[in-house]
Amino acid sequence: MKKLINEAANVVREALEGIEAAHGDRLRVSLEPFYVVRGDAPRAGKVGLVSGGGSGHEPMHGGYVGRGMLDAACPGQIFTSPTPDQIFAASKAVNGGAGVLHIVKNYTGDVMNFELAAEMLRDDGVAVESVLVDDDVAVENSLYTAGRRGVGLTVLMEKLLGAAAEDGATLASLKKLGESIRAAGRSMGMALTACTVPQAGKPSFTLAEDEMEVGIGIHGEPGRRRAKLATADEITVMLMEPILRDLPFESGDEILLFVNGMGGTPLIELYIIYRKAAEIAAQQGLKVVRNLVGSYITSLEMSGCSITLLRMTEELIKLWDAPVDTPAWKNCRLTIGKPGAG
Amino acid sequence: MKKLINEAANVVREALEGIEAAHGDRLRVSLEPFYVVRGDAPRAGKVGLVSGGGSGHEPMHGGYVGRGMLDAACPGQIFTSPTPDQIFAASKAVNGGAGVLHIVKNYTGDVMNFELAAEMLRDDGVAVESVLVDDDVAVENSLYTAGRRGVGLTVLMEKLLGAAAEDGATLASLKKLGESIRAAGRSMGMALTACTVPQAGKPSFTLAEDEMEVGIGIHGEPGRRRAKLATADEITVMLMEPILRDLPFESGDEILLFVNGMGGTPLIELYIIYRKAAEIAAQQGLKVVRNLVGSYITSLEMSGCSITLLRMTEELIKLWDAPVDTPAWKNCRLTIGKPGAG
Repeated sequence: MKKLINEAANVVREALEGIEAAHGDRLRVSLEPFYVVRGDAPRAGKVGLVSGGGSGHEPMHGGYVGRGMLDAACPGQIFTSPTPDQIFAASKAVNGGAGVLHIVKNYTGDVMNFELAAEMLRDDGVAVESVLVDDDVAVENSLYTAGRRGVGLTVLMEKLLGAAAEDGATLASLKKLGESIRAAGRSMGMALTACTVPQAGKPSFTLAEDEMEVGIGIHGEPGRRRAKLATADEITVMLMEPILRDLPFESGDEILLFVNGMGGTPLIELYIIYRKAAEIAAQQGLKVVRNLVGSYITSLEMSGCSITLLRMTEELIKLWDAPVDTPAWKNCRLTIGKPGAG
Repeated sequence: MKKLINEAANVVREALEGIEAAHGDRLRVSLEPFYVVRGDAPRAGKVGLVSGGGSGHEPMHGGYVGRGMLDAACPGQIFTSPTPDQIFAASKAVNGGAGVLHIVKNYTGDVMNFELAAEMLRDDGVAVESVLVDDDVAVENSLYTAGRRGVGLTVLMEKLLGAAAEDGATLASLKKLGESIRAAGRSMGMALTACTVPQAGKPSFTLAEDEMEVGIGIHGEPGRRRAKLATADEITVMLMEPILRDLPFESGDEILLFVNGMGGTPLIELYIIYRKAAEIAAQQGLKVVRNLVGSYITSLEMSGCSITLLRMTEELIKLWDAPVDTPAWKNCRLTIGKPGAG
């Protein structure tokens, strides 16, 4: 196992110490229990937005804490759900009296622990709602999930709800907006290689030099099928077709197209995937009104990619363009001048 | 070789087509010859900032084209210098009458081709200056270089000069500022694994499961030495000590600390490196006033990291904080409120 780590058992704690060292001017990091919150939390009258899940998907979720996105993130150990205590403490830290919204990826452990934390919070007098993310069209049920897995849409959900919460949306309206985003987004991923969980010390599965896994999850869970290695264009078709068919997306839809790297895939390859995905979208009559290309929800150093499509509305475009200032996601749409203008 | 590509020979072209598909609202992409320019180029009265080099280091340089950073980037084939024709065409496209500044990493081919392009531009009546980047303390001379290699400081140079150019700095003052940044920055990198150039089809070198290369370049060039795999903390010491000694950095210096991933290294590991690097800086009496953590100058899917330190001034801090809007680098330092404020 080749990793830039010290003790395998200390990876999450030491990374959190690094986040505090790097971003302590804007974020606060708690080490007992683990969570990351905005430096200005709690904000009176603002709904606190909390997400979390196993570590190993960075920059999600800790990298998305800041103005215009999450109020807090609860990182579990690598690929391990955060505990109810963590979620409770983080939620308390960001509750400014307007309640707390949990964004929960659909994995059995995450769902259970967020639900337990929500009960504890309600007992404590805090209003809590949650939005589930289950956008992965690859498989129904899997190693860690009843129902579909939550993958790439989580990142978009955090950005969009973060903007709405910053604008003063109520807990009830955020819940409703989250459900509409959940209904409008679909994803699918694939892997060229496995990743190695530090405490396991060896790859979570093996793929031959001429094989890939289509429909992979973000923890190395099996996908739909193992297949012979294909070209970037063929792979893009394999991911886009099930996504398009599922919602279904229809000619005339305005969409956000998100091409995500799994951690070990170079950006230059993601643009080759984007090229084909945009071509397929155009052939289907879809209009790509916004996009995102990069490694935003990862699976340690796994090589591969995922594609997420989200049907957009005027409201969602406005929320997408809203300013955000977090360690891993900043948005600053500056106006640009006309060619030749001074 | 497992990559998300179609034909190895088409990687750069298809990635550029992907960049155009994704960012065509803000950038223009030329395919004959290859270059990427701001959509609003040329800007009358603004010095055009042009960089370039072999592809495979993404997001550098194409991801840094946009307001507040580069006016144009010239990507060569993977790890191959751009041609004088490319550099000439890109420079012409961004020349708004105030001249063009080339930011050149110190590799023999890059230096030669940028110099040839500069001569062609001068013959054509365009004022041209260049700033060389040669910040790598690992080795004097190497496989592709006479003198030190240009690595991580290039990214910081592009951000800082980009902000100054946006502010209306003259060609002469940008050249002077670039030289001062060059004099104040130092870097060193290491690798856990090699990368594979698509057209070569096999890794550029081999490292045993218990080995690493200390002082690696960004093209898999040999470093200072091959060593037994060490912990993240030990590796950080191995990189920081030569950097600190070289300038030298001294107690009381205000610095920018940049921890960069080589492409295949997860962000969670970079924060473990940052944690130790910040600790060492503090022990030396250095004050980290700004930082950057992520994969900004890569070597395809190589696993490893580099550290760059830049001695900061009030002027550089102001330029660092200036807004920027490019595909891979956006800056939007939003003010955050006081805890509990509405």
